[in-house]
Amino acid sequence: MDYRIEKDTLGEVKVPSDAYYGAQTQRSIDNFKIAQDINRIPKEVIHAFAYLKKAAAITNREAGVLSAEKCDLISRVCDEILAHKHDNSFPLVVWQTGSGTQSNMNVNEVIANRGHVLNGGKLSDKEKVLMPNDDINKSQSSNDTFPTAMHIAAYKMLIEKTIPGIEKLRNTLAEKSKEFMSVVKIGRTHFMDATPLTLGQEFSGYVAQLDHGLCAIKNALPHLSELALGGTAVGTGINTPDNYSENVAAKIAELTGLPFVTAPNKFEALASHDAIVETHGALKTVAVSLMKIANDVRMLSSGPRSGIGEIHIPENEPGSSIMPGKVNPTQCEALTMIAAQVMGNDVAITVGGATGHFELNVFKPMIIYNFLHSARLIGEGCISFNDHCAVGIEPIPETIKKNLDNSLMLVTALNSKIGYYKAAAIAQKAYQDNTTLKAAALELGFVTAEEFDEWVDPRKMVGNLI
Amino acid sequence: MDYRIEKDTLGEVKVPSDAYYGAQTQRSIDNFKIAQDINRIPKEVIHAFAYLKKAAAITNREAGVLSAEKCDLISRVCDEILAHKHDNSFPLVVWQTGSGTQSNMNVNEVIANRGHVLNGGKLSDKEKVLMPNDDINKSQSSNDTFPTAMHIAAYKMLIEKTIPGIEKLRNTLAEKSKEFMSVVKIGRTHFMDATPLTLGQEFSGYVAQLDHGLCAIKNALPHLSELALGGTAVGTGINTPDNYSENVAAKIAELTGLPFVTAPNKFEALASHDAIVETHGALKTVAVSLMKIANDVRMLSSGPRSGIGEIHIPENEPGSSIMPGKVNPTQCEALTMIAAQVMGNDVAITVGGATGHFELNVFKPMIIYNFLHSARLIGEGCISFNDHCAVGIEPIPETIKKNLDNSLMLVTALNSKIGYYKAAAIAQKAYQDNTTLKAAALELGFVTAEEFDEWVDPRKMVGNLI
Amino acid sequence: MDYRIEKDTLGEVKVPSDAYYGAQTQRSIDNFKIAQDINRIPKEVIHAFAYLKKAAAITNREAGVLSAEKCDLISRVCDEILAHKHDNSFPLVVWQTGSGTQSNMNVNEVIANRGHVLNGGKLSDKEKVLMPNDDINKSQSSNDTFPTAMHIAAYKMLIEKTIPGIEKLRNTLAEKSKEFMSVVKIGRTHFMDATPLTLGQEFSGYVAQLDHGLCAIKNALPHLSELALGGTAVGTGINTPDNYSENVAAKIAELTGLPFVTAPNKFEALASHDAIVETHGALKTVAVSLMKIANDVRMLSSGPRSGIGEIHIPENEPGSSIMPGKVNPTQCEALTMIAAQVMGNDVAITVGGATGHFELNVFKPMIIYNFLHSARLIGEGCISFNDHCAVGIEPIPETIKKNLDNSLMLVTALNSKIGYYKAAAIAQKAYQDNTTLKAAALELGFVTAEEFDEWVDPRKMVGNLI
Amino acid sequence: MDYRIEKDTLGEVKVPSDAYYGAQTQRSIDNFKIAQDINRIPKEVIHAFAYLKKAAAITNREAGVLSAEKCDLISRVCDEILAHKHDNSFPLVVWQTGSGTQSNMNVNEVIANRGHVLNGGKLSDKEKVLMPNDDINKSQSSNDTFPTAMHIAAYKMLIEKTIPGIEKLRNTLAEKSKEFMSVVKIGRTHFMDATPLTLGQEFSGYVAQLDHGLCAIKNALPHLSELALGGTAVGTGINTPDNYSENVAAKIAELTGLPFVTAPNKFEALASHDAIVETHGALKTVAVSLMKIANDVRMLSSGPRSGIGEIHIPENEPGSSIMPGKVNPTQCEALTMIAAQVMGNDVAITVGGATGHFELNVFKPMIIYNFLHSARLIGEGCISFNDHCAVGIEPIPETIKKNLDNSLMLVTALNSKIGYYKAAAIAQKAYQDNTTLKAAALELGFVTAEEFDEWVDPRKMVGNLI
Repeated sequence: MDYRIEKDTLGEVKVPSDAYYGAQTQRSIDNFKIAQDINRIPKEVIHAFAYLKKAAAITNREAGVLSAEKCDLISRVCDEILAHKHDNSFPLVVWQTGSGTQSNMNVNEVIANRGHVLNGGKLSDKEKVLMPNDDINKSQSSNDTFPTAMHIAAYKMLIEKTIPGIEKLRNTLAEKSKEFMSVVKIGRTHFMDATPLTLGQEFSGYVAQLDHGLCAIKNALPHLSELALGGTAVGTGINTPDNYSENVAAKIAELTGLPFVTAPNKFEALASHDAIVETHGALKTVAVSLMKIANDVRMLSSGPRSGIGEIHIPENEPGSSIMPGKVNPTQCEALTMIAAQVMGNDVAITVGGATGHFELNVFKPMIIYNFLHSARLIGEGCISFNDHCAVGIEPIPETIKKNLDNSLMLVTALNSKIGYYKAAAIAQKAYQDNTTLKAAALELGFVTAEEFDEWVDPRKMVGNLI
Repeated sequence: MDYRIEKDTLGEVKVPSDAYYGAQTQRSIDNFKIAQDINRIPKEVIHAFAYLKKAAAITNREAGVLSAEKCDLISRVCDEILAHKHDNSFPLVVWQTGSGTQSNMNVNEVIANRGHVLNGGKLSDKEKVLMPNDDINKSQSSNDTFPTAMHIAAYKMLIEKTIPGIEKLRNTLAEKSKEFMSVVKIGRTHFMDATPLTLGQEFSGYVAQLDHGLCAIKNALPHLSELALGGTAVGTGINTPDNYSENVAAKIAELTGLPFVTAPNKFEALASHDAIVETHGALKTVAVSLMKIANDVRMLSSGPRSGIGEIHIPENEPGSSIMPGKVNPTQCEALTMIAAQVMGNDVAITVGGATGHFELNVFKPMIIYNFLHSARLIGEGCISFNDHCAVGIEPIPETIKKNLDNSLMLVTALNSKIGYYKAAAIAQKAYQDNTTLKAAALELGFVTAEEFDEWVDPRKMVGNLI
Repeated sequence: MDYRIEKDTLGEVKVPSDAYYGAQTQRSIDNFKIAQDINRIPKEVIHAFAYLKKAAAITNREAGVLSAEKCDLISRVCDEILAHKHDNSFPLVVWQTGSGTQSNMNVNEVIANRGHVLNGGKLSDKEKVLMPNDDINKSQSSNDTFPTAMHIAAYKMLIEKTIPGIEKLRNTLAEKSKEFMSVVKIGRTHFMDATPLTLGQEFSGYVAQLDHGLCAIKNALPHLSELALGGTAVGTGINTPDNYSENVAAKIAELTGLPFVTAPNKFEALASHDAIVETHGALKTVAVSLMKIANDVRMLSSGPRSGIGEIHIPENEPGSSIMPGKVNPTQCEALTMIAAQVMGNDVAITVGGATGHFELNVFKPMIIYNFLHSARLIGEGCISFNDHCAVGIEPIPETIKKNLDNSLMLVTALNSKIGYYKAAAIAQKAYQDNTTLKAAALELGFVTAEEFDEWVDPRKMVGNLI
Repeated sequence: MDYRIEKDTLGEVKVPSDAYYGAQTQRSIDNFKIAQDINRIPKEVIHAFAYLKKAAAITNREAGVLSAEKCDLISRVCDEILAHKHDNSFPLVVWQTGSGTQSNMNVNEVIANRGHVLNGGKLSDKEKVLMPNDDINKSQSSNDTFPTAMHIAAYKMLIEKTIPGIEKLRNTLAEKSKEFMSVVKIGRTHFMDATPLTLGQEFSGYVAQLDHGLCAIKNALPHLSELALGGTAVGTGINTPDNYSENVAAKIAELTGLPFVTAPNKFEALASHDAIVETHGALKTVAVSLMKIANDVRMLSSGPRSGIGEIHIPENEPGSSIMPGKVNPTQCEALTMIAAQVMGNDVAITVGGATGHFELNVFKPMIIYNFLHSARLIGEGCISFNDHCAVGIEPIPETIKKNLDNSLMLVTALNSKIGYYKAAAIAQKAYQDNTTLKAAALELGFVTAEEFDEWVDPRKMVGNLI
């Protein structure tokens, strides 16, 4: 491979001659040979950097500390990055310095070098029109840019992927709930037969879970909307122009169309990632909900002949390499695996978030990697589960009816008529004699046949339909 | 021991003759011999049951399904329970049925039996004035009472202990922040020397963390204010009078003085505990904050002679059984142990919350046990840390000054004057020559002595004070 | 309350006049008002301290640095502690100094004061025959005694409670496996009908899980058998006589009857708790196994009429406060709650174990609290589940037969006769036509009736029985 | 793009005309659009499949159920896969069916199609020489192949990457320990000054941690060496020839050079992943150790002027984008981020491992994804930390000496001479008067100058050097 020589404050480094990145990126490649093929800094973080570098350049120009020419070059490269023209220029991995300095410098170097080329220069030129630290990083530090990029990337992912994914599934489940609202079926508590409810009521619980989960995510957004930018090295804003923090946050809000504001306290914004910890807590809550929902769907659809078998789900693929004709709840399985992953990611984020020292938390790349992973998995997982499973859920009336008719727990309706203890005697007799509730009730003489039919009516036992 | 014979639907059970509890409580004692001396159902849950049983009795009476006499007896026993007169009557452990049925029945039995005694009866009477299932549990099921008790207990603990504890610490830290706002000191990022900030700024970050944590807890309260009561067995409200849900929630709100409402969706309220999962996510976020804060305090106060040594904390006890005169940051240690515990509790709650099936989650006692543990530890831990550590924090001016004066990172102020690369050369020369920045700067000829003194002034580098 | 005045190196403290503990214990009570009614240092740790203090006294006497009289007094008090005569003398909580110094001093003070009384003195005497630091703590530090007590308590709990509990359950399941070895039933994969196996084979998987879990625990015991004692303050063994480490470990081994040895590296033994982290990893593995087993039992016994219903479990108590006659898998619920708790405890221990600094880990009390909690819950939970559930498991032949006969996955036996694709066509046709495999097979003409009967025989499909 | 039509038991599917994979792979691509660019099934799993498919083919041939021609074709493709010639043929993601059936079929399809081409056929041929299910998957099921591939991949990664990485770091630290064995320095407990030890002793603790961690990993290998292959659909081994399990395991052992054996209990091997859970527990223990070690290194090297500053670590890159000349402990940061990740992965694996049902655990892809992630991160992280940090660690004698000379905790040496209480008085006086221990001791009159010099000698306080 051809190389050129680049320099940083520690000396010379050989860099591939056509790479837009420079010395510090190369050092990181050389020094952190850890999972380089699978754990690159998420592309969403790189794009977030493009927004913030452009916003910083414009704000610097408006503050009179950056020339219009430089600002223009920087902005043009940022737009190219956002247009995916430089995806290969960001090879660094999560497992680098915990401040993300090397990724910040990777972006600075690519913008500086690409800007120089856009300006008509060559990568091999000794002097370049843009300096990574002095121009691209002006009024910035890794310590405030990286957390800013974290918040931009996280917020965007939630708005663009996570929330829409959950909402899509929520809406399908709400439709199903409405559609199934009159389908009376046996309830199950402790995995055991219980009093009846309707399939629509059962599904309404899933809808309520997701509604609460969406609310939890949205509650966390204001904290996530706070940007560290302007805090620079330790939160004091050293080397920034007046009103820089507010202006640059407003510019980022404008560029992204999202309601970002400057963090009221920059010290918190650099030294902790409680906003990410808090928001991921909401994602974990959603994961908990999804685990419950997907488990229920898998169990309700189990069978086809020796399971619960009360609903039918779409058959998307052959289920077994050895058992012919088998169809499995594969979307449930993907979604529950995702839920488990999010629970694990939560602990990684928790440990990272708790281990900042003094003015800086240095678990930043790991934290945002896990956050974006969860946010994306939930969003895409919900879409997949929705499109390939939830939309096709249908009740299986025969099983539902059979289970309902057999249920001993319909006896509960008699509590308020004959008392809990006599009702219990009826249920126990029916169970031991392997007969029906009615037969047992009549034999015990606690009710008449007419009373039984009047009182023990599953359709009257499901309360108000929603 | 003397026994009497009690009966339930499965048959006879021997119960201590003077125990207010009955057959089902005794069965649970006999069947769940697990950690009986250390893991009783938290007393806060028992008290929550007292509120809800009283509220249910009044609501039942108002609905015309319970006599005034029975309602009065029930209410009187509930008041006695709240006055701690029956603390020994609730011996059951967390590790019982996952619906908490046995604890619900424990409460039902104690109220029925004690009510009978209040009414002039004897525990040995065959017939009693109150029936545990038919009277005390009227219009209820374990499946809606236990989650209701969970929310009441959790909400009360947050309001009475957790939030006030965090607020007390937050306020002390805010006062300290104000008090120390002009104490310029060296910043540290990556645990390494960085540009200066003030001690008050550093502390302001802690305040911001706790403010956000309080906000996160409060965001979760509305979900936690939703009560399952009225859903009964599976969420349909079988065996409840009209408008029971709304009325009993209003009554609980009145009795507790807290803004409880009936859950809009009872199916979610029985089958999931997302409200607890979500709220504990906020507690875990606070734990993350406390870990950071307590670690910083421990590290800032380290020494006395070979550590960071920039603050002084109170000496509360001899620190070592072997090293005479040693004083340790013990309150920091208790608080960080609490933080770790809360992180663990979060996983237990997550796993439990995710593992409900169909109409019921049966990890209820474990979930509320962990929640209350965390909520209490944070509340009492913050008070302890506050009273015995935070209030006594004082800066150590000599060390602060010495560290500040030595710092090489003051060179950062030169970036905007001479550029990052020349500034770096100064810092590196000073480090290698083991000399001052100024000496290195002058020797390199990048600035004059006057310029240096003008530009490199720590007091100018800390930005706006809050 | 009556008080006496005690002194330590920080000054005077008022102590209840009849308390055996002294100034430092009282300071801890006053300074750590955190969960004092529910989170005392586990009694197992106190007992472990009794063993080690006695062993240290004897070793000191044998080394000539402690008089025989003092050694005898110390030993006598230790024996009293082990005989539960001083249970109320150890009121300190987990949430104290992270080295456990205050609990070490609590033990030192109680032994010194009680020893003085045994010697004929009074608690109010100014001069006492034994000094907590100089005599009871001789050749020791909190930093080596507390981790030693951790290992003693953990090892004893595993040997006396955890392993026997798991083994008891394992043996019952092994008997059941043998008993059920010929009961052919439908298999389930993905919660869906699959090829048959026997109930005994299914249970043999549980046995194998527990066997591996027991092996994992036992693999960790050698690390846990290493004692820190003799490392004193930082691991160097300052202020200990020659060969003290080896001798005192041998003495502890003798007193406890367990194979303790001195830790080859005392620096690791004080600064980390990897032995606990590692061993708890094994406990967590067992928790994972128990979750699977208890879930299977709960699901296999579900019904009685609308679930899987292939096994019967004992009916131990009424299952519902509202649904008469309901019986629930309550032992499964307790055991799965325990499993979730252990998973949470694992994270608490992990975070604590990872956060030591330099020569000491200061999350000791929290770490051992969680470890003992898990070890005890697993031990007692297995016994409870065994005695009240596993021993009574019986197959329900009718359901098992019905499910088996209906199964479409018996078609798998045809793969090697007619190929996967034709076999799949048979299964799909039978499913769509709601008919039997045989009918579908004949209709498709892929096999003759004789071939079908010969080839598709569930009893031939279960392989070798164990 | 050009397509061809492929068929499976559910019907026709369009597949890229040049793809070696077939219908079922394509269905999975279409049905699981989840993180497709970042979460492919790890390549190590694909390679493990190549080993097992080859071993199965040979074993089938030797059992007389597969022709030599087909066996040869299969073997040749497997060798190509292992030679990385088909890396793009395995596009499926982790978030698919939880049995990994689709990846098993992906491998079956690629081998069948590529084998057909090797045999002179074309992808577009209607009839092919090899059938994915009947030939490649012969005597197999996804349910036993995927867990077998998991164990092969996990075991290989541990042997080839994880253990060597840990050992390399362990050996460097052992060399450093030896090299620094006489460097007496201040000890720190509770982050506070304590009695002295040598830098080599401090490092010996790290070595002991890693030695124990290596031992823990190796303890788990026997469980991991057990292969599920031969259990087929549910563990009974339906459709396998005699002695197949043992033979195929022996073949895999031969091909991989690793000591694999057939699992004694196939039901456990399909329905649980306790072997992975258990082994990852060991990896998590190592993560806990690495967190401690890297934190110590970061803190010991902190400064350069206002930290602990007792060791020097290599300067690998500029540390700050804004603070010129700053050098940070970046390798420590990468390693501690890795530790946090492994802790999170552990929870994901725990949840997945605990959630199997009946005859199958369907969290397989997620479990192995996390396991391999951890195993690789630890292995490569240790190498990176070793090569770019540990090998360059050097003591900074001036700081070490200054800290040692100032220490008040040297007073501990006087305990056995004048008692703990008088020694404490000396330390407190020295601290309050800001003077030396000797001055305080003399002024208090507790020792003579000669005694002090004789007794308080740090070099005598560090015990036996290792």
